[in-house]
Amino acid sequence: MIGEDVKLFSGTATLELARSVAHHLGQSLSHSSVSQFPDGETCIQINESVRGADCYIIQSTCAPVNHNLMELLVLTDALRRASAWRVNAVIPYFGYARQDKKVQAREPITAKLVANLLETAGVDRVITIDLHAGQIQGFFDVPVDHLTALDILGQHLQTTGLEGTVVVSPDVGRATEARRLANFLHRPLAMLYKRRASPTETEVTHVIGNVAEMRPIIIDDMISTAGTVERGIEALIKLGAVPEITVVATHPVFTPPALERLSGNEISKIYVTDTIPFHGGHDRVTVLSVAPLLAKAIQNVHENASVSSLFTN
Amino acid sequence: MIGEDVKLFSGTATLELARSVAHHLGQSLSHSSVSQFPDGETCIQINESVRGADCYIIQSTCAPVNHNLMELLVLTDALRRASAWRVNAVIPYFGYARQDKKVQAREPITAKLVANLLETAGVDRVITIDLHAGQIQGFFDVPVDHLTALDILGQHLQTTGLEGTVVVSPDVGRATEARRLANFLHRPLAMLYKRRASPTETEVTHVIGNVAEMRPIIIDDMISTAGTVERGIEALIKLGAVPEITVVATHPVFTPPALERLSGNEISKIYVTDTIPFHGGHDRVTVLSVAPLLAKAIQNVHENASVSSLFTN
Amino acid sequence: MIGEDVKLFSGTATLELARSVAHHLGQSLSHSSVSQFPDGETCIQINESVRGADCYIIQSTCAPVNHNLMELLVLTDALRRASAWRVNAVIPYFGYARQDKKVQAREPITAKLVANLLETAGVDRVITIDLHAGQIQGFFDVPVDHLTALDILGQHLQTTGLEGTVVVSPDVGRATEARRLANFLHRPLAMLYKRRASPTETEVTHVIGNVAEMRPIIIDDMISTAGTVERGIEALIKLGAVPEITVVATHPVFTPPALERLSGNEISKIYVTDTIPFHGGHDRVTVLSVAPLLAKAIQNVHENASVSSLFTN
Amino acid sequence: MIGEDVKLFSGTATLELARSVAHHLGQSLSHSSVSQFPDGETCIQINESVRGADCYIIQSTCAPVNHNLMELLVLTDALRRASAWRVNAVIPYFGYARQDKKVQAREPITAKLVANLLETAGVDRVITIDLHAGQIQGFFDVPVDHLTALDILGQHLQTTGLEGTVVVSPDVGRATEARRLANFLHRPLAMLYKRRASPTETEVTHVIGNVAEMRPIIIDDMISTAGTVERGIEALIKLGAVPEITVVATHPVFTPPALERLSGNEISKIYVTDTIPFHGGHDRVTVLSVAPLLAKAIQNVHENASVSSLFTN
Amino acid sequence: MIGEDVKLFSGTATLELARSVAHHLGQSLSHSSVSQFPDGETCIQINESVRGADCYIIQSTCAPVNHNLMELLVLTDALRRASAWRVNAVIPYFGYARQDKKVQAREPITAKLVANLLETAGVDRVITIDLHAGQIQGFFDVPVDHLTALDILGQHLQTTGLEGTVVVSPDVGRATEARRLANFLHRPLAMLYKRRASPTETEVTHVIGNVAEMRPIIIDDMISTAGTVERGIEALIKLGAVPEITVVATHPVFTPPALERLSGNEISKIYVTDTIPFHGGHDRVTVLSVAPLLAKAIQNVHENASVSSLFTN
Amino acid sequence: MIGEDVKLFSGTATLELARSVAHHLGQSLSHSSVSQFPDGETCIQINESVRGADCYIIQSTCAPVNHNLMELLVLTDALRRASAWRVNAVIPYFGYARQDKKVQAREPITAKLVANLLETAGVDRVITIDLHAGQIQGFFDVPVDHLTALDILGQHLQTTGLEGTVVVSPDVGRATEARRLANFLHRPLAMLYKRRASPTETEVTHVIGNVAEMRPIIIDDMISTAGTVERGIEALIKLGAVPEITVVATHPVFTPPALERLSGNEISKIYVTDTIPFHGGHDRVTVLSVAPLLAKAIQNVHENASVSSLFTN
Repeated sequence: MIGEDVKLFSGTATLELARSVAHHLGQSLSHSSVSQFPDGETCIQINESVRGADCYIIQSTCAPVNHNLMELLVLTDALRRASAWRVNAVIPYFGYARQDKKVQAREPITAKLVANLLETAGVDRVITIDLHAGQIQGFFDVPVDHLTALDILGQHLQTTGLEGTVVVSPDVGRATEARRLANFLHRPLAMLYKRRASPTETEVTHVIGNVAEMRPIIIDDMISTAGTVERGIEALIKLGAVPEITVVATHPVFTPPALERLSGNEISKIYVTDTIPFHGGHDRVTVLSVAPLLAKAIQNVHENASVSSLFTN
Repeated sequence: MIGEDVKLFSGTATLELARSVAHHLGQSLSHSSVSQFPDGETCIQINESVRGADCYIIQSTCAPVNHNLMELLVLTDALRRASAWRVNAVIPYFGYARQDKKVQAREPITAKLVANLLETAGVDRVITIDLHAGQIQGFFDVPVDHLTALDILGQHLQTTGLEGTVVVSPDVGRATEARRLANFLHRPLAMLYKRRASPTETEVTHVIGNVAEMRPIIIDDMISTAGTVERGIEALIKLGAVPEITVVATHPVFTPPALERLSGNEISKIYVTDTIPFHGGHDRVTVLSVAPLLAKAIQNVHENASVSSLFTN
Repeated sequence: MIGEDVKLFSGTATLELARSVAHHLGQSLSHSSVSQFPDGETCIQINESVRGADCYIIQSTCAPVNHNLMELLVLTDALRRASAWRVNAVIPYFGYARQDKKVQAREPITAKLVANLLETAGVDRVITIDLHAGQIQGFFDVPVDHLTALDILGQHLQTTGLEGTVVVSPDVGRATEARRLANFLHRPLAMLYKRRASPTETEVTHVIGNVAEMRPIIIDDMISTAGTVERGIEALIKLGAVPEITVVATHPVFTPPALERLSGNEISKIYVTDTIPFHGGHDRVTVLSVAPLLAKAIQNVHENASVSSLFTN
Repeated sequence: MIGEDVKLFSGTATLELARSVAHHLGQSLSHSSVSQFPDGETCIQINESVRGADCYIIQSTCAPVNHNLMELLVLTDALRRASAWRVNAVIPYFGYARQDKKVQAREPITAKLVANLLETAGVDRVITIDLHAGQIQGFFDVPVDHLTALDILGQHLQTTGLEGTVVVSPDVGRATEARRLANFLHRPLAMLYKRRASPTETEVTHVIGNVAEMRPIIIDDMISTAGTVERGIEALIKLGAVPEITVVATHPVFTPPALERLSGNEISKIYVTDTIPFHGGHDRVTVLSVAPLLAKAIQNVHENASVSSLFTN
Repeated sequence: MIGEDVKLFSGTATLELARSVAHHLGQSLSHSSVSQFPDGETCIQINESVRGADCYIIQSTCAPVNHNLMELLVLTDALRRASAWRVNAVIPYFGYARQDKKVQAREPITAKLVANLLETAGVDRVITIDLHAGQIQGFFDVPVDHLTALDILGQHLQTTGLEGTVVVSPDVGRATEARRLANFLHRPLAMLYKRRASPTETEVTHVIGNVAEMRPIIIDDMISTAGTVERGIEALIKLGAVPEITVVATHPVFTPPALERLSGNEISKIYVTDTIPFHGGHDRVTVLSVAPLLAKAIQNVHENASVSSLFTN
Repeated sequence: MIGEDVKLFSGTATLELARSVAHHLGQSLSHSSVSQFPDGETCIQINESVRGADCYIIQSTCAPVNHNLMELLVLTDALRRASAWRVNAVIPYFGYARQDKKVQAREPITAKLVANLLETAGVDRVITIDLHAGQIQGFFDVPVDHLTALDILGQHLQTTGLEGTVVVSPDVGRATEARRLANFLHRPLAMLYKRRASPTETEVTHVIGNVAEMRPIIIDDMISTAGTVERGIEALIKLGAVPEITVVATHPVFTPPALERLSGNEISKIYVTDTIPFHGGHDRVTVLSVAPLLAKAIQNVHENASVSSLFTN
């Protein structure tokens, strides 16, 4: 057990994961209830004193994102006003992360807005996993412990036979992560990108790098609608890739029609983690748990031990 | 038309009201789109330059409250980053207003949290109607123009024949508003309250004030589940009130089973406003519009004219 | 004794109460002096090290309110700059609380201003008693422990014989507190309110609820000039109330001519607390002390025990 | 007249000066009232719209300093909440200025606290005269226009015959200001200082610089209790100074027994300004007005003209 | 000429560029001097009134970066305290941009620190060009106008004959920018990356994509020591690329030994802009000016016209 | 040894002093490296966990001031993001201190800017020595422990024979410090000042106070270019002072040509401290170390003991 002055809380987003983290810490979730008033307003009740406690709220801001974010903010407000010593937001999947810069004019930078909202509510620290862009750490002025599920996913992949595989980035923007996995597995790298060959043509997904007669491992931080992956698979197959494709991602967002798109025979395996609940019973999908990683991180944070030592950087 | 440098925006919560306000100002809503990404994240596009403009976002934070609040926050972020001169949040119905203090230990004060979130996002001013408690103005450090629909509701009531009526507060907490209406209409006042006559008895709704052979006008700031009103009506009838009851409220929250509870024959009329969309087609419900009031307030704010002059204080 | 790292300070407003609180904690006030320079500027000297200490400043912001508030702010500044671990402002009576919203146009919201000033000076927590409006808690972003003297007053009233009594709210705005006391004592409720029966008449105090042949217990959070109470008593007597009236209030502001107004024979007893010093020697006034309540609250805050458990909510 | 969008306000501290400033600007003070509630709380009413206006509050924070400071803060809060464009605090005498650093352990730095309180209340700019230390400008993050009455005082002195005079600093801490006046008048400088010749002796006021057979002009930023000046005069006379001493100061704090101390025959003239009201009718005291200086500064601030050009630096 | 109330300032970093921008705006730089005190402290003098002016400081934070950054901060402080209406920081090259996230444990995020420092000093808006990562926009809460020199560079490249060229990203992290240029020029894409084929091997630069018999155009946001480019060129040549390589970058950081590394015969042309002064007289280097782009952006910002319309997104 | 949870860091400015402080505390500096990237950007690596540690960064902001300041800011950022409990900036010499007020129009107040930058970066406390003006303490809102080297310098002077000496302030602005030393040594005081005897004459350095046949001890907080001291010595000699002058200052800034100016035969001794590294090997200069003073201050801060007790106030 980690200590009496640590208290673990969960909203409704990732309750099962939160319970699992608590279990790994030899502890139960604190007595509290997170629900809705009849008109849909978030309703929080904390049923034990938290004065002076080191509190950890485990809550992904996955869909319904605005609702889950608000639960996190209101819980934080309640704990802070109840004189918690410290409120740590453990956000396994950080929603709105793709809105991290202005691509078009007059866009919001919602990921920064969310960071500001969390700090305003009173969050003292953030623990999160595989942010869409590492720069989001800098959106916060409070300390951020940025964990990665790369080791969990990579070590599992190593058990599955890697001969003849090539790690594939589904997009120019994900090349850094793909290279990290490629180097972890000591496998070559390829990249997909959308190209317009002349001003009048439409964009077509191209492959750069050698994929012929290789088994692609497509790696992304999240699988959302799987549209990019679907188009990428077509391009890979066209160039002679072996139709035994593995798809790897930390965050199973799985917005419809993601699962249909991933049901083709050329996909043999999909590996994700439980940063977002997935109950699809899709037989090709294997869910690896980040609970032990989060539990260890919470323990180290509480005991002032190094967090960076938990994972390959 | 109010001026080229005024731009009106709306989220999805009260789009019809926003259009009506724009119409009263001789202007259209600005070109923008507020929608959702496939995974439910709020998606904002602003399709015209807003540099240096005096922007007004018209959006109630009614149900789905967390979603509508987030739309308001993201719109504010986008406008501020796009160099709007000033972002004014016009919030006809301010959700979470009942969570304005700690009644039990360790409760959040969500209304204050929401005020802080709005200021963090970059709101420069708030225009709102009939806050659940006037003190919520003080939750903000930016200027708040607190309008009231009392004149709109009161003037309409005056056309309906007030003889033999008594204004009734449904609860001790609403007595101030009930007295305001009673004095506006020059009618007597009564109050309902829940009483426990001994430690072993349960709470029963009592009436104080004379209601026998009078027609009650029950006034509240909002009708949510209508439970309090329902119990109040029973108590009033038991004490001899005439079963021709009028129910008046600014904000038609109407959470189920509100409309069933208000379908008894002893209720003759229900007056509300359009601060929250209501499409129930309930034939006893009359919706009065606050659009002219909001339009006038926006115009006066923009032209630096007095806003307090718009209504009986 | 509570602990070496707790230090208690007092300004000049409620020095006697502060000493009494210290006594209940088995401790003395810290060595410091709070006085004025010849030109009236507040002069603070702290004569012992406070580095790392958990400091509590006990000071009501009663009259002279601006002076007492400034003493509190300057003490806070001095403690913070002297590296106190935590500065807790214990404000038994929170002045300016009635200026908690804009009733007329262009009014200040001074209660919020005061909350902001306290946070700016460096207050880390507020402990206070019976705020004029519970929403004032939300004016702060630091934790507020909002105590009530209801139990102290109510338990004393129970020893005085309650048969035939009715709890009376002197105003529509105080009905919530009156109902709390009524339910605490299991007695019925009545309410006074000012009514204008037609546009040409002046406001007259009316009673709603049955008071004939009953002994009224008028409850307010504070007695200021006692004008409202005086007019209420007239109205109660006119409706047949027994002229053995009890007046109960937490805060004895007693601005002249309050004591004259409360010297009529129909008032038999006045119960207040010592949140504001009262040395009038008025034989009908009984002062009950909040010192044990404050001492227990300070102890629980310091030891991270629940504060809400100290009183009936 | 300066412009319709300029509004001038005054608290009770320096109302006469404020009226005089307004007169110089061809304008009246805005309709407002600053008074006290019966219990001593500051009461502000602003009786005309200030939306979008450039507001100037003219108020010295002289005695009663805490009260006058609070009037200034509450007025600022009211104007800001009433949507004033800009709130400029014109503080001819800035109280608490001598508490500008920690000299003893655990002292407050009240001048900085006051600066923080003013910024928290919403002051956008400060206009002030002859701060006790120029560094106080840096206590603010908003712009400060630091005026000096040196030209007003110096030009008047030039009309009085300066032959045989020596400018005397009453203390080591005021030597900079004394040198400024000495150079303005092209007269030599002397300085008083307190010296302890051995560990067992008490401090005695010494003179450095030649004063024999010269007429001293003692210059300070303010005359408070005049104790330093009194001891200085003794020392000057002992060293052969001509007993026709002139005392010059911007701020006539005149805390008792200042005027008795300055009533000796060796003092021929005392020159001060009206940054603090002085109605003593002391025939040796001449009050020069800063109203034209303040009026010109307000006009230049409003019209974006240079303020530094108003005075010798 | 752009308007009297616009004032342009420059530190010492990019004075020539600033003069050129001013020239394009038909205006001179404002009278000011930026120099050093003898002990190296930055010394700022502003020799004309800036009250109410819309001020633009043009200053890259290139080497000596700490010195140039401090000049920018001190200038901002001086302008703000001198009552400028608005201080716009025009930072053509934003130094420290590569320190935008924690890659190793306990690293600073200096780019965010710099953003915070600029906001603390009082910057109201940032105008910059080709940030190392777009997310740096979100490090600011003030509006950021993020310009790109892509059009300037791309349009120039189009005049040079593109047949047989391939756009090459020198690293996985720059693939997004390379793809933008590839699509602008309608040319194919290749990417360099460092690979470790087994745990015992060292990293070797690999190429993915087809480069044989093609002329590479290597694109980066900045050329620093040119080490990555040098190793990339080796790899490209080894795979049969034509040794007529073009190197393109917005920011010519050119830290030694960059120019030696770029002096090989396989490099035919280097295109950069003047966001950083370059006086190397290197005959293969062509410097294109961003002055017209910055001038237009300043004009549009000042006149509230769209800035996004200035460039291909 | 002071404790495991204390960690000492140093930038490059005063590394030797930092090591000496660490030695006095029985401890080594923490494993970290402070260097530059090839392009001059400050590069920080912290090679041990600092979670929960009480960190002290020892770094004067002497020349190169902007560089050393930035090292301090970046180190602070890194420690804060790495979850240090507390970051204490130990700044023996606080650069930019002379820019502490606006003397001319539109000057920056760089000392305040630096204070704001330090607080923004995350400094929790400042420990410094002999600030140019005590008011700079008030530029911070975090606690400042303001130490003095007066005791170190004064006690050393007492061993050198003080008969016939006079303490001389080199300027009107330093008179307060000179008087402090004069009283510490029980010696008389004189002061130098620049005077213009008529509007057409240039300023000439004058002496006030008796110096004939006395040995002057000139005291300043820092010796920069020594121009003021040089002119002062001339004036002193002209008035008959004995040409055996001692110069005393805490901070040896020694900007050229300071040492040449101080090489005249009339100067017999120069005493300074090691708040700034001095390696001139100038045989008249004696460097006294502040390391024991800083070590004791750090120990007392860490152990919550009084710091004010370390020195004569």
